[in-house]
Amino acid sequence: MPEAVALPVTDSQRQRVTGVTVTPVAFKDLPLLNTVGVHEPYALRAIVEVRTEDGLIGLGETYADADHLARLRLAADEIIGTDVWDVNELARRIRVVLAGGPGTGDHGMAGMVTGTSTADAILSPFEVAFLDIQGQATGLPVSTLLGGAVRDTVDYSGYLFYKWAAHPGHEPDRWGAALDPDGIVAQARRMVTEYGFSALKLKGGVFPPDEEIEAIHALRRAFPEHPLRLDPNGAWTVETSIRVGQELDGVVEYLEDPTPGVEGMAEVARKVPMPLATNMCVVSFAGIEPAVRRDAVGVVLSDHHFWGGLGRSRLLAGICDTFGLGVSMHSNSHLGISLAAMTHLAAATPNLTYACDTHWPWKDPGEDVIAPGALTFSDGAVAVPTTPGLGVTLDRDMLGRLHEQYLECGLRSRDDTGYMRGIDPSYELLSPRW
Amino acid sequence: MPEAVALPVTDSQRQRVTGVTVTPVAFKDLPLLNTVGVHEPYALRAIVEVRTEDGLIGLGETYADADHLARLRLAADEIIGTDVWDVNELARRIRVVLAGGPGTGDHGMAGMVTGTSTADAILSPFEVAFLDIQGQATGLPVSTLLGGAVRDTVDYSGYLFYKWAAHPGHEPDRWGAALDPDGIVAQARRMVTEYGFSALKLKGGVFPPDEEIEAIHALRRAFPEHPLRLDPNGAWTVETSIRVGQELDGVVEYLEDPTPGVEGMAEVARKVPMPLATNMCVVSFAGIEPAVRRDAVGVVLSDHHFWGGLGRSRLLAGICDTFGLGVSMHSNSHLGISLAAMTHLAAATPNLTYACDTHWPWKDPGEDVIAPGALTFSDGAVAVPTTPGLGVTLDRDMLGRLHEQYLECGLRSRDDTGYMRGIDPSYELLSPRW
Repeated sequence: MPEAVALPVTDSQRQRVTGVTVTPVAFKDLPLLNTVGVHEPYALRAIVEVRTEDGLIGLGETYADADHLARLRLAADEIIGTDVWDVNELARRIRVVLAGGPGTGDHGMAGMVTGTSTADAILSPFEVAFLDIQGQATGLPVSTLLGGAVRDTVDYSGYLFYKWAAHPGHEPDRWGAALDPDGIVAQARRMVTEYGFSALKLKGGVFPPDEEIEAIHALRRAFPEHPLRLDPNGAWTVETSIRVGQELDGVVEYLEDPTPGVEGMAEVARKVPMPLATNMCVVSFAGIEPAVRRDAVGVVLSDHHFWGGLGRSRLLAGICDTFGLGVSMHSNSHLGISLAAMTHLAAATPNLTYACDTHWPWKDPGEDVIAPGALTFSDGAVAVPTTPGLGVTLDRDMLGRLHEQYLECGLRSRDDTGYMRGIDPSYELLSPRW
Repeated sequence: MPEAVALPVTDSQRQRVTGVTVTPVAFKDLPLLNTVGVHEPYALRAIVEVRTEDGLIGLGETYADADHLARLRLAADEIIGTDVWDVNELARRIRVVLAGGPGTGDHGMAGMVTGTSTADAILSPFEVAFLDIQGQATGLPVSTLLGGAVRDTVDYSGYLFYKWAAHPGHEPDRWGAALDPDGIVAQARRMVTEYGFSALKLKGGVFPPDEEIEAIHALRRAFPEHPLRLDPNGAWTVETSIRVGQELDGVVEYLEDPTPGVEGMAEVARKVPMPLATNMCVVSFAGIEPAVRRDAVGVVLSDHHFWGGLGRSRLLAGICDTFGLGVSMHSNSHLGISLAAMTHLAAATPNLTYACDTHWPWKDPGEDVIAPGALTFSDGAVAVPTTPGLGVTLDRDMLGRLHEQYLECGLRSRDDTGYMRGIDPSYELLSPRW
């Protein structure tokens, strides 16, 4: 039996947290339509920096709605002194501090995603920052710390939106209007040309279902090989959902949240041929069991921002694997730190086999808080960073500029419905709408 | 905003595997009775050593039944060159190599635990060894790598067995006979005195249920405050199980595997007042969904040896948390590497709140493959090692001696039933027995 030489024990890679900064930023957003209204001119995010005794800085990104920001700051004070390897302790402290915090308001999902765990949403950016530091301390990419990348690149889907040509009072944006099937196909062509996406998702729930069915058929004609998805964010009744599902048999790879609620989803699931996907019906660990017992969903869209970070998103993926559910990935408007985290997570999650959602193309390429070059799209995919940690570094000038933009823009919480009502006072929030 | 000083990037802690050794060992075991027979004079284990390019050695421990050993050796050859952080790749290679391997025979559980995943049982010791190396490379204990210890000590339960005074033809062992309630109480007193256990579990399924009920009542009288458990390994019919459960209302914290099969367990669960625990009804990820859908169990006994290692055992714990199931821990006869792994896992698993099973007291204290002193019992608990990795080191002299013992003892697979039949040719294997 060969004897290996025992090395001296390495100095511990423990890294105590000595400081946390939470910086809200705003970046320009386009008038993307959804079933609760329209995206405002700016999207808000909070950038979390965690610093350690050795001078390492870990990054996280999350929502920046006012209540969420207040909770983040409570948590930031509470986690000083924790070891970045001790995510159990991080989670414990967050649970404790939130018990005395400002309640459980929205985080920045415009009311479309409700029922998430506030503790998990607060945990997320800190856990990501902890992993970033673990990676820097060990020289390992986050995907390696999550169990190892099973793929070198992560596929994203082209996320199509009905949209106006411009925010009222603004110049037309570079994407122009998309308000009918032709407009959606043109948008898709441009997005596929620019990014190389090999899957396409249409945000629905905006126009009557027959118009959206027609848009999907038009996409199928224009892109015969691209997997397609339609997501009306629960805009339809059970009956409408069943009709749409049957009409799109063989056309979409999954139908996402056609109708609100577990019971309705379960009824639709029994009567349509494709899997139902969700980021509304199952959005927390507490929501999994009811959906599983009723066979309400076939694919869960994970999202580390509200599932408690990357480790707990892997738990979600493991649960899905155990219960025969597919895993895809949800996105809100986001910046580069989130894209890096999503890419590492997807790389290390063997059963995350669907192309992930991203709002990336809708962001002004000149606006981000990370230094350019770390993440690029090629053939619709992002190469998994192989440098330590998340593999992205903060651009402090841009952080400052986008923070100034936050201060100046006046927005403090996402409100797609309020913005729409300011433009069209007759706008009604209906669920289901058709 | 204070500027932190960026450190130079640490050298990567990747550690490529350059060699793997699998050494079967045998250690003396006592004539412990169970529903399939009696423990043989020796228990078999396989000790896995994984060596890396930097000379680190990681340890794992598993079953050593002949088929399992053959599979371990196939896997050992296949994993050369993997990075110890890349557990996804480790698992992939094991799945691939097992597809061509020698089938799915028993691993060393005497037929009491069936339906486990062969791939997970093979993955386990290598994954533990990988974590041991990760810990050595980073100076972190395995519990820290698993998310952080939430407790400094891990409680174990005193595992009581009906037993003979000696193996036939041998001198009486130091524990003596325990064949009735008084014998069990005397055994419990000694075990509590020597180890300080604050919970007690009786291995049942050996005598008619009324005798075992009486033993539990006798334990309750002798130990009014100790949580008690009874585990007949599926020896009872549904009717018997319900009767026993009702008679032990308020006396046992859980009843473990009273009857075989998911359907039977579900029926019993509906009619007894205490939770049903299991390490027979749910022993693999594939087995979780049927049990959840039927509400067949209330507590799952994890066991990293057949659940795929420590990371996948944490997944199991997360699933249990998600579905409202308790988590406890199962044990077979084991040595110190397993005790270390069990202790790190339990320390890092917040919802593993029951005292864990261990066969530790039944082992000759002079027989182990680890250097003494790393793991000690105090008040029924083991302090979680705070040194890097598992915190145990191989005693090569003892490894050699116990390997010699393996070669000399002649046992190549665990066979409690065959051994019993050699002693009592009229012995019948019945399931359920009463």
